Amino acid sequence: MIKKLFAEFFGTFWLVFGGCGSAIFASQIAPASTGQLGILLVGVALAFGLTVLTMAYAVGHISGGHFNPAVSFGLLAGGRFPAKDLLPYVAAQCLGAIGAAGALFVILSGSGTPDFSAPGAFATNFYGEAVYFGKSYSMGAAFLAEFLLTAFFLIIIMGATDKFANGKFAGIAIGLGLTLIHLISIPITNTSVNPARSLSQAVFVGGNAMSQLWLFWAAPILGAVTGGLIYKFLLQRDGTEPLGN
Amino acid sequence: MIKKLFAEFFGTFWLVFGGCGSAIFASQIAPASTGQLGILLVGVALAFGLTVLTMAYAVGHISGGHFNPAVSFGLLAGGRFPAKDLLPYVAAQCLGAIGAAGALFVILSGSGTPDFSAPGAFATNFYGEAVYFGKSYSMGAAFLAEFLLTAFFLIIIMGATDKFANGKFAGIAIGLGLTLIHLISIPITNTSVNPARSLSQAVFVGGNAMSQLWLFWAAPILGAVTGGLIYKFLLQRDGTEPLGN
Amino acid sequence: MIKKLFAEFFGTFWLVFGGCGSAIFASQIAPASTGQLGILLVGVALAFGLTVLTMAYAVGHISGGHFNPAVSFGLLAGGRFPAKDLLPYVAAQCLGAIGAAGALFVILSGSGTPDFSAPGAFATNFYGEAVYFGKSYSMGAAFLAEFLLTAFFLIIIMGATDKFANGKFAGIAIGLGLTLIHLISIPITNTSVNPARSLSQAVFVGGNAMSQLWLFWAAPILGAVTGGLIYKFLLQRDGTEPLGN
Amino acid sequence: MIKKLFAEFFGTFWLVFGGCGSAIFASQIAPASTGQLGILLVGVALAFGLTVLTMAYAVGHISGGHFNPAVSFGLLAGGRFPAKDLLPYVAAQCLGAIGAAGALFVILSGSGTPDFSAPGAFATNFYGEAVYFGKSYSMGAAFLAEFLLTAFFLIIIMGATDKFANGKFAGIAIGLGLTLIHLISIPITNTSVNPARSLSQAVFVGGNAMSQLWLFWAAPILGAVTGGLIYKFLLQRDGTEPLGN
Repeated sequence: MIKKLFAEFFGTFWLVFGGCGSAIFASQIAPASTGQLGILLVGVALAFGLTVLTMAYAVGHISGGHFNPAVSFGLLAGGRFPAKDLLPYVAAQCLGAIGAAGALFVILSGSGTPDFSAPGAFATNFYGEAVYFGKSYSMGAAFLAEFLLTAFFLIIIMGATDKFANGKFAGIAIGLGLTLIHLISIPITNTSVNPARSLSQAVFVGGNAMSQLWLFWAAPILGAVTGGLIYKFLLQRDGTEPLGN
Repeated sequence: MIKKLFAEFFGTFWLVFGGCGSAIFASQIAPASTGQLGILLVGVALAFGLTVLTMAYAVGHISGGHFNPAVSFGLLAGGRFPAKDLLPYVAAQCLGAIGAAGALFVILSGSGTPDFSAPGAFATNFYGEAVYFGKSYSMGAAFLAEFLLTAFFLIIIMGATDKFANGKFAGIAIGLGLTLIHLISIPITNTSVNPARSLSQAVFVGGNAMSQLWLFWAAPILGAVTGGLIYKFLLQRDGTEPLGN
Repeated sequence: MIKKLFAEFFGTFWLVFGGCGSAIFASQIAPASTGQLGILLVGVALAFGLTVLTMAYAVGHISGGHFNPAVSFGLLAGGRFPAKDLLPYVAAQCLGAIGAAGALFVILSGSGTPDFSAPGAFATNFYGEAVYFGKSYSMGAAFLAEFLLTAFFLIIIMGATDKFANGKFAGIAIGLGLTLIHLISIPITNTSVNPARSLSQAVFVGGNAMSQLWLFWAAPILGAVTGGLIYKFLLQRDGTEPLGN
Repeated sequence: MIKKLFAEFFGTFWLVFGGCGSAIFASQIAPASTGQLGILLVGVALAFGLTVLTMAYAVGHISGGHFNPAVSFGLLAGGRFPAKDLLPYVAAQCLGAIGAAGALFVILSGSGTPDFSAPGAFATNFYGEAVYFGKSYSMGAAFLAEFLLTAFFLIIIMGATDKFANGKFAGIAIGLGLTLIHLISIPITNTSVNPARSLSQAVFVGGNAMSQLWLFWAAPILGAVTGGLIYKFLLQRDGTEPLGN
């Protein structure tokens, strides 16, 4: 069990360090005084997905590779994860995420004292704020987006690891699924679908990031449970025999 | 059969929600007042492909993973899909697509009343309109592009799922094939190759999107049938023994 | 044999249609009057690679998936391709490429009479012309770049299809290898490494594209032969027994 | 052994030629007088990763596919690489890297005498310099970033090639892991995590690139050793029996 928790700790550390780190250090989507552009939102989306893809192949064989409390809740609802492991997994995920946010904070501080006053700074999640393209999305819209995206994330996870599926490709499907989720929704909420990731950035930023944190626990977990149940009851086949390729 | 239809419903929902959603919320290809750029057209192309890649591994083992009426028609022509399943599949695909467009409409409305007056708004398909780079393409050019792209899409699908092929990689080849198709043709028609995807956006926008909808049913379906027949008669081998590798 | 030639014909058609097509219709790397950006050079690089990735899984099991005269020459030098098939393969590749260029020409004409007066127009290859970023590269630099890139392309192809390799991943390695090659060298020559691709665009453009065509046959073929020989003599192991994973 | 060293030589040549080459010839992240953009930092990140992905499948079966002295050190610490091979591997890697930098220098000279006076020119690594977005990162921040990124790189490598893992996907996980590392850290140090890559560019540029080179040997090697030990002692399972899928 301790190795599983280490796997979740390092996996979630990597998710936050890589995903939020790419957004913090490299995204640059408006040419400022230097006129330079960075990896843009497409690069951030790719980075988040690749954290999961890489760790799924690296330590997924140890812990199952959740790296996300909502995923643990959803797999529990879908009958793929034992209830007794839920709290230790969530704790390891939150600790890993906070550790990564701390490392990001230290590195960022090497470029001067960070200023987190703007909404979305330090890659925090948000709703009702016009961070991208001069547009804000209401709390309801943000909740619906996070809910639906996490629900489909769980359908992908449950399906790609189904005994009838090509399970060895699950790391690719799930990782690139997280990339896809970010391609859709960064401008809406900075994309959470992961309560530990939202928590870790809010811990260092406080303010609105902390007061809005509830949504980034409630919507992803509710969505994940819904996705797990949809897969279990509407899609999963009962047969025990493989159907071949 | 009901699980197959649920798989097609959720898969096509995800295709429209992710592909059109990324275009609607995140593409931003001209820096407006904020000076910001989004995922650009390369991100939208990636998103469409990843919807299919993820769902192919998640539910492809349930329904075959068409998520597209043209694909169902093409596989029927190619001898890989039974005629009796055609209408239920197409119905499930259209319902899933329309459901996704509805969800996109609700989320978008959380940012103010949507304005769909410009051609291509809400990720609708079009022809003869200068939406990108100040260039428009004639109806004939749009038809030829959609026809050829869907024909090659079917060649890829038929080939990658051939019994002689490495079938487990089909989800990657087909998903990234759809990315490639979008990389070529978004500026021409906003890329359809999928009648359900065109229908769903037109339902909410009406106007030209609806009056031009015929092309995005006719060209993809004709192209898909042609592609299915090309593979069947010019490329598919008759032998029943595997050739190794 | 006829199915092999059809596979090479359609595969090379797709390579030119998708790779050059994405460059022609969608690349847009400088915001013109509309201020819009397209898929940028990263999208074009991705498109070229995905044409090969998709067709490698679709028809690679039929013809081996060369889609490129230089590859056929290189595999011949490396001892993986019979000399008697060389000319038919090259002919099918050139016909497929020219067919695709014709289709691109027709679609492009649907947006007004094409103007091919600028160097690099219609995705033609070039040397000694400042097409990107105000820089031009000499004939010698262009030759060296094309030579080295094609040599490494053949090392990748020979290695990834080696009996000791994970051959099922060859389509991914080779396709994304072509993406990588384009990421490096589009600004130098518009990237050829493929004589058929260079020929097909030059046929429609003429002028300098035709008078410089010799380099895009000589350098890739010489590079490919060198790469094939490097792999055969410096890297390929003699043992006949698999070494396990 | 000689074939292993050739594999490391050509693999590291390709890493530097492709990764640094894409940065030198094609990245263009600020629109200069031509107003054009290139592959941006996302393209450079993709290029670095694809050099490793392609060579892992091409020659990984020959040498194990390190292409990086830090990886060799880390695998030694993790118990996966014999000490007697360390120096020959590192020598082959450094020679391959320098050869590639030489080829890049020749091609670049075909566009006029190169000017390497700016920090980061010729894709050299750096710290304490404001190369991107007007921000510089202190020596300590640069060290921490290189240390952590290389540590996680080794966790990915050790994990993805673990006997319990889906080892055939290791080339994808490790290659795209290097892409991810670049997505995070190009603006901090131009990203090394590879002493041979840093050496090769510094050899041609000298000056600060050479005087700062120590950090790009010390931090990656220390990080890699740490990562190898973390995997070995905290994550690696002792059991000898496979756990199934």
